[in-house]
Amino acid sequence: MVSLGQLSKNDYEIIEKFLLRNPIDVDWWKKKDKEIHHDLNAFVLERRRFIPKNLQKYFHKGMTSYDTEEPAFALKLKASGKIVEKECLEMIDILKNMAEKYRYTIMYAKTHGQGAELQSFGKRCLTWLVDFQISFNALSVVLKKNLGFSKLSGAVGNYQGVSPEVEKEALGKLNLKPLYGATQIMPRELYAQIAQMLSNLVGTINKIALSLRLGARSGCPIYQEGFGKNQVGSSAMPHKKNPIGLEQLKGLLLMALSYAMGVIMTIETWEERAIEQSCLERVFWPDLFHVTLRALNVIKKALKRLVVYPDNMWEEIYNSCGCFATNQAKEKLKEFGFDSKEAYRAIQLAAFIVFESRKTRKTIRERIPTSFYEAEESFTKGVIMDAFSKENNSIREVISSGLLRVSMSLAVTDEEVQKWNDELKKIFKDPQKLKSWKEIFKPSYLLRREEALFRQVLETNFLATL
Amino acid sequence: MVSLGQLSKNDYEIIEKFLLRNPIDVDWWKKKDKEIHHDLNAFVLERRRFIPKNLQKYFHKGMTSYDTEEPAFALKLKASGKIVEKECLEMIDILKNMAEKYRYTIMYAKTHGQGAELQSFGKRCLTWLVDFQISFNALSVVLKKNLGFSKLSGAVGNYQGVSPEVEKEALGKLNLKPLYGATQIMPRELYAQIAQMLSNLVGTINKIALSLRLGARSGCPIYQEGFGKNQVGSSAMPHKKNPIGLEQLKGLLLMALSYAMGVIMTIETWEERAIEQSCLERVFWPDLFHVTLRALNVIKKALKRLVVYPDNMWEEIYNSCGCFATNQAKEKLKEFGFDSKEAYRAIQLAAFIVFESRKTRKTIRERIPTSFYEAEESFTKGVIMDAFSKENNSIREVISSGLLRVSMSLAVTDEEVQKWNDELKKIFKDPQKLKSWKEIFKPSYLLRREEALFRQVLETNFLATL
Amino acid sequence: MVSLGQLSKNDYEIIEKFLLRNPIDVDWWKKKDKEIHHDLNAFVLERRRFIPKNLQKYFHKGMTSYDTEEPAFALKLKASGKIVEKECLEMIDILKNMAEKYRYTIMYAKTHGQGAELQSFGKRCLTWLVDFQISFNALSVVLKKNLGFSKLSGAVGNYQGVSPEVEKEALGKLNLKPLYGATQIMPRELYAQIAQMLSNLVGTINKIALSLRLGARSGCPIYQEGFGKNQVGSSAMPHKKNPIGLEQLKGLLLMALSYAMGVIMTIETWEERAIEQSCLERVFWPDLFHVTLRALNVIKKALKRLVVYPDNMWEEIYNSCGCFATNQAKEKLKEFGFDSKEAYRAIQLAAFIVFESRKTRKTIRERIPTSFYEAEESFTKGVIMDAFSKENNSIREVISSGLLRVSMSLAVTDEEVQKWNDELKKIFKDPQKLKSWKEIFKPSYLLRREEALFRQVLETNFLATL
Amino acid sequence: MVSLGQLSKNDYEIIEKFLLRNPIDVDWWKKKDKEIHHDLNAFVLERRRFIPKNLQKYFHKGMTSYDTEEPAFALKLKASGKIVEKECLEMIDILKNMAEKYRYTIMYAKTHGQGAELQSFGKRCLTWLVDFQISFNALSVVLKKNLGFSKLSGAVGNYQGVSPEVEKEALGKLNLKPLYGATQIMPRELYAQIAQMLSNLVGTINKIALSLRLGARSGCPIYQEGFGKNQVGSSAMPHKKNPIGLEQLKGLLLMALSYAMGVIMTIETWEERAIEQSCLERVFWPDLFHVTLRALNVIKKALKRLVVYPDNMWEEIYNSCGCFATNQAKEKLKEFGFDSKEAYRAIQLAAFIVFESRKTRKTIRERIPTSFYEAEESFTKGVIMDAFSKENNSIREVISSGLLRVSMSLAVTDEEVQKWNDELKKIFKDPQKLKSWKEIFKPSYLLRREEALFRQVLETNFLATL
Repeated sequence: MVSLGQLSKNDYEIIEKFLLRNPIDVDWWKKKDKEIHHDLNAFVLERRRFIPKNLQKYFHKGMTSYDTEEPAFALKLKASGKIVEKECLEMIDILKNMAEKYRYTIMYAKTHGQGAELQSFGKRCLTWLVDFQISFNALSVVLKKNLGFSKLSGAVGNYQGVSPEVEKEALGKLNLKPLYGATQIMPRELYAQIAQMLSNLVGTINKIALSLRLGARSGCPIYQEGFGKNQVGSSAMPHKKNPIGLEQLKGLLLMALSYAMGVIMTIETWEERAIEQSCLERVFWPDLFHVTLRALNVIKKALKRLVVYPDNMWEEIYNSCGCFATNQAKEKLKEFGFDSKEAYRAIQLAAFIVFESRKTRKTIRERIPTSFYEAEESFTKGVIMDAFSKENNSIREVISSGLLRVSMSLAVTDEEVQKWNDELKKIFKDPQKLKSWKEIFKPSYLLRREEALFRQVLETNFLATL
Repeated sequence: MVSLGQLSKNDYEIIEKFLLRNPIDVDWWKKKDKEIHHDLNAFVLERRRFIPKNLQKYFHKGMTSYDTEEPAFALKLKASGKIVEKECLEMIDILKNMAEKYRYTIMYAKTHGQGAELQSFGKRCLTWLVDFQISFNALSVVLKKNLGFSKLSGAVGNYQGVSPEVEKEALGKLNLKPLYGATQIMPRELYAQIAQMLSNLVGTINKIALSLRLGARSGCPIYQEGFGKNQVGSSAMPHKKNPIGLEQLKGLLLMALSYAMGVIMTIETWEERAIEQSCLERVFWPDLFHVTLRALNVIKKALKRLVVYPDNMWEEIYNSCGCFATNQAKEKLKEFGFDSKEAYRAIQLAAFIVFESRKTRKTIRERIPTSFYEAEESFTKGVIMDAFSKENNSIREVISSGLLRVSMSLAVTDEEVQKWNDELKKIFKDPQKLKSWKEIFKPSYLLRREEALFRQVLETNFLATL
Repeated sequence: MVSLGQLSKNDYEIIEKFLLRNPIDVDWWKKKDKEIHHDLNAFVLERRRFIPKNLQKYFHKGMTSYDTEEPAFALKLKASGKIVEKECLEMIDILKNMAEKYRYTIMYAKTHGQGAELQSFGKRCLTWLVDFQISFNALSVVLKKNLGFSKLSGAVGNYQGVSPEVEKEALGKLNLKPLYGATQIMPRELYAQIAQMLSNLVGTINKIALSLRLGARSGCPIYQEGFGKNQVGSSAMPHKKNPIGLEQLKGLLLMALSYAMGVIMTIETWEERAIEQSCLERVFWPDLFHVTLRALNVIKKALKRLVVYPDNMWEEIYNSCGCFATNQAKEKLKEFGFDSKEAYRAIQLAAFIVFESRKTRKTIRERIPTSFYEAEESFTKGVIMDAFSKENNSIREVISSGLLRVSMSLAVTDEEVQKWNDELKKIFKDPQKLKSWKEIFKPSYLLRREEALFRQVLETNFLATL
Repeated sequence: MVSLGQLSKNDYEIIEKFLLRNPIDVDWWKKKDKEIHHDLNAFVLERRRFIPKNLQKYFHKGMTSYDTEEPAFALKLKASGKIVEKECLEMIDILKNMAEKYRYTIMYAKTHGQGAELQSFGKRCLTWLVDFQISFNALSVVLKKNLGFSKLSGAVGNYQGVSPEVEKEALGKLNLKPLYGATQIMPRELYAQIAQMLSNLVGTINKIALSLRLGARSGCPIYQEGFGKNQVGSSAMPHKKNPIGLEQLKGLLLMALSYAMGVIMTIETWEERAIEQSCLERVFWPDLFHVTLRALNVIKKALKRLVVYPDNMWEEIYNSCGCFATNQAKEKLKEFGFDSKEAYRAIQLAAFIVFESRKTRKTIRERIPTSFYEAEESFTKGVIMDAFSKENNSIREVISSGLLRVSMSLAVTDEEVQKWNDELKKIFKDPQKLKSWKEIFKPSYLLRREEALFRQVLETNFLATL
């Protein structure tokens, strides 16, 4: 108003002085809000009381509450967006570095959860990078474009209380431009897009996390979420290294999707506005940004601490018995004169054969046991043969023979290990104890209580009570 | 492959000739698909059988199914997008024209469903235009950008079967660029954005429709959805002009939102791909485009046929008893020296008073009737006074006195009207008939069966059976 | 364990004594959690340190974390459910009372936002009651059934660490039954249903709120959300009574729907469990219950304080010109021998005619003004005729003539009113002031700045920047 | 009406006769609908034209369209529900049989994708059974309860056109009860619950499918989706056996969730109804039922044709090096006097050690290769040692040495195999061909084109174009 000559510089400075001298009394404000049920108006009252009577009319002059709230809202979203963007740029760096670092680390790419063709692990990282960049760029565009606008055009948006010049000037000071055509509020279309792009970003993060979780499954993990040296995996099972961060990312995605869905549905409002959107926005926007930032932190930490097992990647390739090259093999046979269809069929046959031979542990596969004892027996007489009695590389032996040693992955000292080994050896001198120890590795012992389950579910009316 | 020297022009032309000569046999294809459970492979077999043996190896060489399907998918989305964009441009024209046409048609803007300040109806159209343009521009951007890419990079996206050169050349012919970093499939992030922008567009359309529905409510409608001259509003109630097109738009929005939600959740997939997305995409994409186009058609038709009642707009303003200017009135009082807070309160008081005086039909308002007869009595002795017996402008009189006449809004002829009026006059000569006719306009008659409802719900155990 | 003879009563009491003597140290617990990244295990460590060494093995024996967490979770949901149910019963009472109170209060029922047939307002309340009871009953069923179960069956749910007897005994003490067949966790199907029924309940509440909002629209409101005597409706427009509570209910519904959607998607998990669901549940369950309770409080308050205007209900009926009985009228004509189809058409014609005659303020309706001055002129020369100059019942006159008086709806005193009236009369003695006061009630004045809007939107490249 | 004496039996029979004699002319109906924009009314006109004039008034007497449509809708949902229930009962049988069949087939249960404790495969099936029963029972309850009601109570639900007796009688003939309190339509709360329970059912199916997909991953699959003898897994890679049915179930779930979300949001409507819900219901209900049935068919087929590999289940257990018993081992150590915390730590240490020793293929793990040649070299000099040159169990050798043989899993004849083997032997006599054949199994050859990818993504401005 000063630059437009609607208020003298002197009067402005008086108002400013009194307001700065009296900081906002939040308690007073909240109490007034309880009384008049209008938070912005209560705020105006809180402020105005410190302005000299004759100048009070200039404060909030001709404005509607959302002339204040909308620009503030845009600035808050902008500030939150900046934090997200900064984290994203770090994420992009991490992915770029991984792509380059593992450019020649060979792995078995998987489609449908089945080994497909070879690729480098760097290539997989490259894909993550591109996917993430897609989501990030789209987010950046809408943050920049949609948050560049706001409004200060009065109760129905046609400048009855304020003028277009005041709007332009005031918004300009906040680095915002007028959104001509706003009603009492900004069109929620602008913010819906931001919520969508945020949840898409978390969607990409979750896709990466899912690849990581799948590669970390026990058996032949090709990589694993780093595990703190003092971390506890499970309160029951000490051997567990659960990828709980990566799993959390699925939960965070579902949260982000839910928040975004809510935000999108606030596009609808009545005529020049109703206030359906307000309660939702007060909760969902902070929560959506928190969830997005949490997701970025979790995935960045997981990637930075990722333990990669190139040897296991090789093991997967080796175990594929050459299947990793069936595409080229098929083309090669065609090149060598095989009929197109037959080349496909011959390679398909070869691929099935190599696994059949490997899988003909027929006695086990074909006889369905009728008791756990029979099951154990079929196992010990099968291909693998009394596995546990013959080898040392089992915790059964490591513990009962006191073979513990220090490990890089656990915060444990030589002294502790020594103490434990001594104690263990002493314990297992007792043949009774050794026997009862060995007992717990027997499936028939471990599963003895499943009986109760089957009885309850299949032989009582339990299912009907569900 | 020809331009890259991987296939002679002559061989290419032979292949082309044989394929063109033999159109695709869809039945053969479908039958083969049933046999091998792979639709793209079945298609390749259908085509390949017509190519000379020695050239068959060039067809689908080294490609994975999605090297064919993804570019085709992008082209289909592009073509569908073009149709939507064309409709949108028409919509923008309609809104621009309305904004200009009604630039000086004055209406009472509403916030929270309450009269707020004045605006022109052109201003409301301007807002619709801006909102729509926001959603349209965002859609256009992602249609152009995201559908500019595709892939032809083999089974895991690193060119084992095909080369980057072939990809670039082949996609180029389709006006597409390679999306470097794709896996077996394109990242669904790209398409999720399109689904989101489509559903946002329908969201804006529904917001406009909602404003139209609210303005069309009976009482003092300021505009109404055009109604066909032969249209039937309700099978029971002949007087109804239901805004069924505008209401349908809410249903269409819910459909679009549902489809978009499904599409968005297909970003997640396993490693280099699994095929979760396929069944959904085959149904949701066509349905989402259909729903979007339907929404555009319905809103365009509604706007083009919109019947605007400027007189009713004035009536609303008139009935507000000056409240349309409370904002300026309050500022004016401040200008005239009133204390800021008191100016607000005084105008608030004035605004409440004018309606209190208008609403003091005290006998009616304060005595809750205990029977329908008492209700009718309080009505006839109230402010409005035996309304139905005194005036002619009721269908009760129009019908019973045979006062029908031709109307612009209904396809009805003078002859029909004449015939009906004659018939009616004859009927209502009979005082019995006239009496029983008048009876049906009595609330106590019309509502006589509500008794049963109250009894069933409040005096039986019905609620417990729900 | 004591009742099953697996622990002596004496040992149990020692453990209990030490634990009770040492209250939980939340800080210690949280610190430990930070170290080992496992909150339940950290809690076990916190507790166990107070148990005598030789008895520590009995604490959390063979249990997995979720053997503790799942029963606790069920109990928390149960307790929250009880609070919701209590509020619901109050809501049912309110609706029953309203149904009975307004059993004979006649209103014009609306379909498609158009007056349809008569009903009592009690009937509308009855519908709300039945709808609410449907949602409430469904919620009660799942609260009772689904929260009657829990699990304490070890790390994969087949009792390796604990026995079925311990499970049954321990859960029994918590008034829970074993869910035979659980994995490490309970199946989320059980809880999904609860989230769905909660959001459905809010859905019903919102449907009621929507009816209330529609009836409260300015013009001829049939009821209104109660408005505090000190409440402020709008910071700009003192006359506003905005139904902000009812509007909030739409936002609360969108929140509830979003939370429920997230919860439902946690049914999916990996094999015997992964921990995707945990972060979401920690946030969404409390928030969903809060939102549900808030919705119940808001709607109950709105209904309890609802201001009903039976006179306006009559006005609506009166203004329908008999259309409220078209259904019966049509049937009556058929009874009197009219052809079925013609009876429909004749009544339809009558219904259109009565409104045409009422709406033929032709000069206004048919000439679209080309300036605001022309618009004003057409108004003053139209049906309504220089409305503002002739009547006193406008805030223009009430203020400028100092006609304020005390009102029931505002906390204002006689003294204040007197003071204001005096002040106003003094002010408006000045003819300049009176003139400038009257000016603000002129549309051409109020809308003078729309010009800028149209120019910006239609004559610059603004639309392209969106 | 006949049983209530409102219509003579004779008249009824005349009406019936004429209607039955003239089957519905759908084209006529559709044409009329186009004209009057009201499908039910057009239907009434189509039927009524065949009724003798004097009896026409009895047809659709006093009814509103939804008095016809709602009961029809309930019956359609009921019929569809019955089909779903039948399929569910079959599913329950399949799961019961599997639970019993695999009662003693031992597997390694997994939490967080990590081997946890032992369980029988029957136990896992038991869990699926219980989960499915939960979803099925909930569905059955709402199908029975909510579809037991409908309405025939006129345009606003208070019997102005029809009587409560007619409603009860007419609905009774359709095996339905009156929903007292309905408006023009039934409250959508009733149907929302059905949509939710249907999508929950698909949710359970998808959870089962996900367990199956995870167990079917290549490496050490414990079961696999059956694969047709003529089925083609991938157009590029002949060795693939993709679980496409199970993956489709995820897509089907997303579809079901989307449809259910849409249905739920139609609870909201205006006052005594608006028609937002109609278009959505016409599409979503059939689609939701189709998707649910498809999901049931796919999962049933997958379970019936499931190929179970108990030997691989043993292999997983074996490869866990005893970790499957860490819970019991930890408790046993405590029993033997170990401190609670130390017992946990000692077992944790043992578990990490056994894998470290197994994973110390140090040269591979620690040196990140800088070219594919170096990568290959590290491989051949590593633990696994020139694997491919030494063994026959690779498709490289099977093909180049002509070692194909007939397999149970493929529709291939001895003659074909013989022919292929002969052809192959002939081909690979040529040392050039053998060399070029072996070449394709070299990673450095296969991955030669990744170079282009890295260059495009990391060294051009590609990322900026996304």
